[in-house]
Amino acid sequence: MPETIASLGEFGLIDRITGNFSAKHPQTLKGAGDDAAVIDTGKSLTLISTDLLLEGIHFDLIYTPLRHLGYKAVVVGISDIYAMNGAPRQITVSIGLSARFGVEQVDELYAGVKIACDQYEVDLVGGDTTASMTGLTLSVTAIGEVEKDKIVYRSGARENDLICVTGDLGSAYLGLKLLDREKRVLEGIENPQPVFDGYEYLLQRQLKPQAQRDVIEAMRENSLVPTAMIDLSDGLASDLLQLCKASKMGARVYLERIPIAKESFALAEELHIDPVVAALNGGDDYELLFTVPLNKQGEIAQIPGAEIIGHIVTEGKGAALTTPDGQEITLTAPGFGDGGR
Amino acid sequence: MPETIASLGEFGLIDRITGNFSAKHPQTLKGAGDDAAVIDTGKSLTLISTDLLLEGIHFDLIYTPLRHLGYKAVVVGISDIYAMNGAPRQITVSIGLSARFGVEQVDELYAGVKIACDQYEVDLVGGDTTASMTGLTLSVTAIGEVEKDKIVYRSGARENDLICVTGDLGSAYLGLKLLDREKRVLEGIENPQPVFDGYEYLLQRQLKPQAQRDVIEAMRENSLVPTAMIDLSDGLASDLLQLCKASKMGARVYLERIPIAKESFALAEELHIDPVVAALNGGDDYELLFTVPLNKQGEIAQIPGAEIIGHIVTEGKGAALTTPDGQEITLTAPGFGDGGR
Repeated sequence: MPETIASLGEFGLIDRITGNFSAKHPQTLKGAGDDAAVIDTGKSLTLISTDLLLEGIHFDLIYTPLRHLGYKAVVVGISDIYAMNGAPRQITVSIGLSARFGVEQVDELYAGVKIACDQYEVDLVGGDTTASMTGLTLSVTAIGEVEKDKIVYRSGARENDLICVTGDLGSAYLGLKLLDREKRVLEGIENPQPVFDGYEYLLQRQLKPQAQRDVIEAMRENSLVPTAMIDLSDGLASDLLQLCKASKMGARVYLERIPIAKESFALAEELHIDPVVAALNGGDDYELLFTVPLNKQGEIAQIPGAEIIGHIVTEGKGAALTTPDGQEITLTAPGFGDGGR
Repeated sequence: MPETIASLGEFGLIDRITGNFSAKHPQTLKGAGDDAAVIDTGKSLTLISTDLLLEGIHFDLIYTPLRHLGYKAVVVGISDIYAMNGAPRQITVSIGLSARFGVEQVDELYAGVKIACDQYEVDLVGGDTTASMTGLTLSVTAIGEVEKDKIVYRSGARENDLICVTGDLGSAYLGLKLLDREKRVLEGIENPQPVFDGYEYLLQRQLKPQAQRDVIEAMRENSLVPTAMIDLSDGLASDLLQLCKASKMGARVYLERIPIAKESFALAEELHIDPVVAALNGGDDYELLFTVPLNKQGEIAQIPGAEIIGHIVTEGKGAALTTPDGQEITLTAPGFGDGGR
C-alpha cells in the first residue's frame, strides 16, 4: 500500500520533509521540530515561528468576525515564541484576498492585528498581499528574542519532572462546536440571532484566545526556567506526545487533574461530548504545557493559572492518562487535517 | 464612490494597512515598505522577508512541475534578502495541501526546496503544514544577515545616480505566455507533446528563476554598495516606481537600454506582444534593480550582467521612459492581482 499523507499524519509528514535537510550554518541552533526556529544572533537568540491560517480549515468567515481573526492570527504566531520562553518582538502578516473582499474588510482584519500588536507590544514589520482565487489565506511569521541561558526547548523533560498546564483546556474547541451548532440551526434564517447565553467564555476562548505572556513573565520573576515547554495548539494529547518524543520520555497525566472550565462541562453535556476528549484533542487553547523538576512545586504556585497534571516517566513506559480508578489509557494524536487546527 | 482594493492597488493597500502601525522596539529598524524587514540584533542586522504563493495566482500546476515550484519558492524568498545587499541564511516553508496531494508530490515539492537550499546555502528551519480546502498554498519566510554598514534600502537613490539592472527583463513573463499558449492548444489532447523548441531559455526563466547571489558577491568584492536596490518581482515599471517613491526621486530610463533577450524578441513577435511592455509589466524576473553614484560607472562593468539603463532625477520630474526619438512616456504600475505575480 502506498503511503498517504493521512497515514503519515502531520508530524510524520514533517519528519519526512525535514529529515533530508541538515543545517549548514553554525548559527542555526534549531530548525524544524520545536515551536520556533532558533538562530544565534550574537548576544541573544532570535526565534522565528510561522503559521498558515486557511479559510475552511482554520476559520469559518460565517461566524468569525474579521477583527477577531486578525487578532487571533497574531496570538497564534506569538504563542510559539512564548513557548520557547522568549519575548515576541516583531511579526509579519501576509494575506491572500479573494475578489469578494473589500477595503473595509481588510481594515477590519488589520484593526484586529493592531489591537493584538499593541497589547503584546509587537511590531508589524511586513507581509505580502496578493489576490487569491480561493478563500482568505493568512500567513503569520512571529520573530522573538530570548537570552541564551533562558531558552526552553521541547526536548528537555527528564524523568520525575512535573507536567504543568496553564488555564483550562478544551474550551476553545467547545466554543467552536457552539458556533457550528448555531450556524446549522440558523442556516437560511434572515437576520439570525444566535443564542450564546452563559457560554460567552467559550466563544471568547475560540474567537479571541490569549497568548501566555503573564505566565512567561511570572516565570521570569520567580526565576523558574521550565525543563521543556510547548504551546497547546493541537490539543493536550498531541502536544504532550510531541514534548515526550522530543525529550525521549514518557508521561503520566491524571485525568481528574486536567483543568476544565465549568462552562465546558455544561456545554459538553448539552452536546453529548466528553469534555476530557475535548481537552485532549480539541486544540486552539494556546495555553502552555511545560515541565519542571520535582523540587519546583513551590514555584508553580506563583505562576498564574498553572496546575500540575502529571509527571514524566521513562520513554519505555509511554504516554498515558491515568483514570481515578487507576486505569491507564494510552495517549494518541488525531490525524492530519483533523481537529480544531 | 467607495474605495476598492482594485482602485487602491497593491501598494496603496499596503500603505493603508501599515499606516496605522508604528514600531515600539528600537531594534525594529525597518518594517513594511522595503524588500525585507530589518532588525538590529547587535553585531549585524537580521533581515526577514515573507512571500505567499497561491495556486491559480502565482502558479498553475498544469504546467509547473512541483520540483520547480519548490525551487522557485525558495528563490522568490531569498531574492528579497539579496535585494537588501544581505546573505540569506535560513528559510521557513509552509504548505497548505488539498486532498488530491499525495506523499510523492510533497516529496517532489521539497526536493526542489532542497536543491535551492543547497545551491544558495540556506537552512530550512521550519514551516507549517496543514490541510487546505482549496488549492496548494505556499508561504515562505526568508531570514538573512547583513553588516550594518552594507545594508541597502530602496530609499537611498539620489539625483544623478545611475540606474542599473542585471540580466534581461520580460523573459519570465514570456515563458509564462508560452506555457499558457501550449496549455490552451493542447487542452483535451491525450498525451500532449508541447513544443518549446528554441524557447527553452524562456521556460527556464519562468520555471526555474535564479536569485542574484553572484551579483551581490561581485559587488562585495568590488566594494560597491548601491545607494538603493530592489528585486524585480513585479516588473521594471512597478519596482522602479517603488524605488523612486521610497527615495523621493524621479527616474529616466532609456527604452533601448532595457536588456531584452533575443528569445524574448522572437516569442514576443510570434505572440504579438510588445517585448518592452513585457519587461516593464511582466514581473517574475528576480533580477536586481539598483542605483549607484555617477562616479561608479567603472565598477558596474565588474558586476556580472549589470547594465546602466538610466538615471535618477528629482521627484518633480516623475518617472518616465525615454524613447530613441526623445519622447517621454510616464511609467505606471499595473493594478492589484494583475501581471505574472
